[in-house]
Amino acid sequence: MGLPWEQLFSGSEKRLRGSAIRDLLAVAARPDVISFAGGLPAPELFPLDAVRESFDRVLTDDGAEALQYGATEGYEPLRVYLAEQAGSRGIHVGPENVLVTTGSQQALLLLSLVLVHPGKGVMIESPSYIGALQAFSLYGPRYHPVAMDDDGIVVDAARDVLAQPGVRIQLLYTVSTFQNPSGVTMTLPRREALLEAACRAGVPIVEDDPYGDLRYSGERIASFRALEGGEDSVYLGTFSKTLAPGLRLGFAIAPKQLIVKMGLAKQAADLHTDSVAQRALLDFCLHNDLAQHVAMLCDVYRERRDTMLAALDRYFPSGCRWTRPSGGLFTWVTLPEGMDATALLAEAVEQKVAFVPGESFFTDGSGANTLRLNFSHPQPAAIDAGIRRLGDLLRRRLPTAGGAFAATLAN
Amino acid sequence: MGLPWEQLFSGSEKRLRGSAIRDLLAVAARPDVISFAGGLPAPELFPLDAVRESFDRVLTDDGAEALQYGATEGYEPLRVYLAEQAGSRGIHVGPENVLVTTGSQQALLLLSLVLVHPGKGVMIESPSYIGALQAFSLYGPRYHPVAMDDDGIVVDAARDVLAQPGVRIQLLYTVSTFQNPSGVTMTLPRREALLEAACRAGVPIVEDDPYGDLRYSGERIASFRALEGGEDSVYLGTFSKTLAPGLRLGFAIAPKQLIVKMGLAKQAADLHTDSVAQRALLDFCLHNDLAQHVAMLCDVYRERRDTMLAALDRYFPSGCRWTRPSGGLFTWVTLPEGMDATALLAEAVEQKVAFVPGESFFTDGSGANTLRLNFSHPQPAAIDAGIRRLGDLLRRRLPTAGGAFAATLAN
Repeated sequence: MGLPWEQLFSGSEKRLRGSAIRDLLAVAARPDVISFAGGLPAPELFPLDAVRESFDRVLTDDGAEALQYGATEGYEPLRVYLAEQAGSRGIHVGPENVLVTTGSQQALLLLSLVLVHPGKGVMIESPSYIGALQAFSLYGPRYHPVAMDDDGIVVDAARDVLAQPGVRIQLLYTVSTFQNPSGVTMTLPRREALLEAACRAGVPIVEDDPYGDLRYSGERIASFRALEGGEDSVYLGTFSKTLAPGLRLGFAIAPKQLIVKMGLAKQAADLHTDSVAQRALLDFCLHNDLAQHVAMLCDVYRERRDTMLAALDRYFPSGCRWTRPSGGLFTWVTLPEGMDATALLAEAVEQKVAFVPGESFFTDGSGANTLRLNFSHPQPAAIDAGIRRLGDLLRRRLPTAGGAFAATLAN
Repeated sequence: MGLPWEQLFSGSEKRLRGSAIRDLLAVAARPDVISFAGGLPAPELFPLDAVRESFDRVLTDDGAEALQYGATEGYEPLRVYLAEQAGSRGIHVGPENVLVTTGSQQALLLLSLVLVHPGKGVMIESPSYIGALQAFSLYGPRYHPVAMDDDGIVVDAARDVLAQPGVRIQLLYTVSTFQNPSGVTMTLPRREALLEAACRAGVPIVEDDPYGDLRYSGERIASFRALEGGEDSVYLGTFSKTLAPGLRLGFAIAPKQLIVKMGLAKQAADLHTDSVAQRALLDFCLHNDLAQHVAMLCDVYRERRDTMLAALDRYFPSGCRWTRPSGGLFTWVTLPEGMDATALLAEAVEQKVAFVPGESFFTDGSGANTLRLNFSHPQPAAIDAGIRRLGDLLRRRLPTAGGAFAATLAN
């Protein structure tokens, strides 16, 4: 016995990006560590009583239906509700355009199964959300990373990729608002120009919007699907950041023919999403004011973002830069050229503070001097203390020159 | 606008077996239709109050943890529990060998992602479970169907496939007990011989066991993983048939290195399974006697199986054959050669009775004269009435000779 498993594993599995820093980040879960590493909502803000009441109502009123097998595309009244909600944001669709997914991560998997070809192109923001890269990588595409600035994707860079001879792009993936990992939001003119370029090239835009509701200042910007000519864009939403991630409830809005294909893929993936959770979600939305709950979240997270930005201003040495997001969960730090954020993490963990080095958000090996900081999960005092510790580490190391520092720690 | 989606869809998606009979079967959901089509548990037997109490306890005692992101591999105390339960059935593993999945369907998807190569072999029972074919087909394997008889897989037929020069088999998939669709159980000597042959060829056995607990007579037969030399076998379990399918809770037991790879794939698939449901499941198992609940299910389903077999004896014409399962949810009917079960379904639906034609359980185009009947969902009176209607249809048609009948209806 003792099968040679390594010889049996398929190529696809090798494309799964196991994270070399996973062990380091496991440390971040220890209670004595201040973690800026995850993308976790603040658990003390979950509306526990209301959620419990919703589960109770569903199992009391509809228990047998909720515990039975359900439709692959999702609980129909929830699809209707999601379509209505989308309408209030300029996305005019029917329930047949909505697919309930097991978290929006599953929507990424289904899109990968349906649209991604080995060797064909996927256009992504650089940096990009790791979970999307994991999902797309299952089918081995060729990535075409496109540069971003403070206004989102640089449209000329995207046009250049689209114009390359022989390049076939299957989809353009963007977290357009409060991006993970950068915190950047794409402006409306950029969206309009990007959509026009994508349409002209026959490339669908997949817009992942987990953070759009968590806006701390400014006005919501229309999603691609709500723009003129955006009918072929795909919109991914989730309740992981606004209600609770543990329930794994997301959804995709897409043209009917794509929903049909994604539904077929979902049959193979998990038959359907937990029916009790789907019904409890709808019950929660009908019996509570989710918008008011989100407004409360925004008040708390706004303070934490402000605390983090103030602490960065105070404690981080000059030569470091970071984004100033108007919402979402993350800010993105660029260290001086030549510094290595992964090496810094090893030191930071000793000081009981953690973050995610930026390199794994890139597909081209760049980004060694970048890192992502989460401000939604730690409380303000911890944010200040943690950023101070990181700042101390950086200050101590910076005078000896970034390059030498990185080289030393990498050994 | 108006993207040419058909040109964008990937090859993988084309491999998804959309079911030509899906529309017909949608009719089966109408309340005036007696449906033998699904594989649904009897909803009137769900332990609603106990499940509601478990959700309430979880959200009262552990709410914030349950609503937060959780571990990809599953809720650790549930993994421990599942490993212990496996031990009581001769499967001696630790929690590190257990992966909680979003229904056992997801385990099939993850195995497909990790083990199946385009063009390489997957050995299956003929007929085989459709959901497994859907999952494996995502990676375009070459199927090697192996004949079954009343004792399960014909081992000599399996040996012949394994001995074919140039054939590389990635895995052997079996629903060894009360098989879907046939209701057949593989005998212990067959299991031992098959395991030996598979081990010799370096082929892992994937044993899917959703029905093993639903035994109405006879003794449980050891699973492959519990046999000597079975350490590399994969065991898939689920709570869909014993507790409730709506919660989408399954699990895989496998060698550690395979669990690690499946966990990576699960990160890309849905990050983790609903944490509230996982905790409610464990709470239910700790506060209730699941074995006693299953014994009650067996009493009810035994009566329904007996009712169906008696009705088949009474109403079906000679020339038809069917299996006499000792458990599970299905019996499998073989009509006289030349008859077409899909054509029969069209007529049956007019008579407000439905079943699943057998053809889609085969990968080689055979099985046109077979069909699957479910006896767990309809109540005894409906079983008798529905089988009588089917019997009447068959009797009316049979005298005109099976071949002519099929040809007429197929037009």
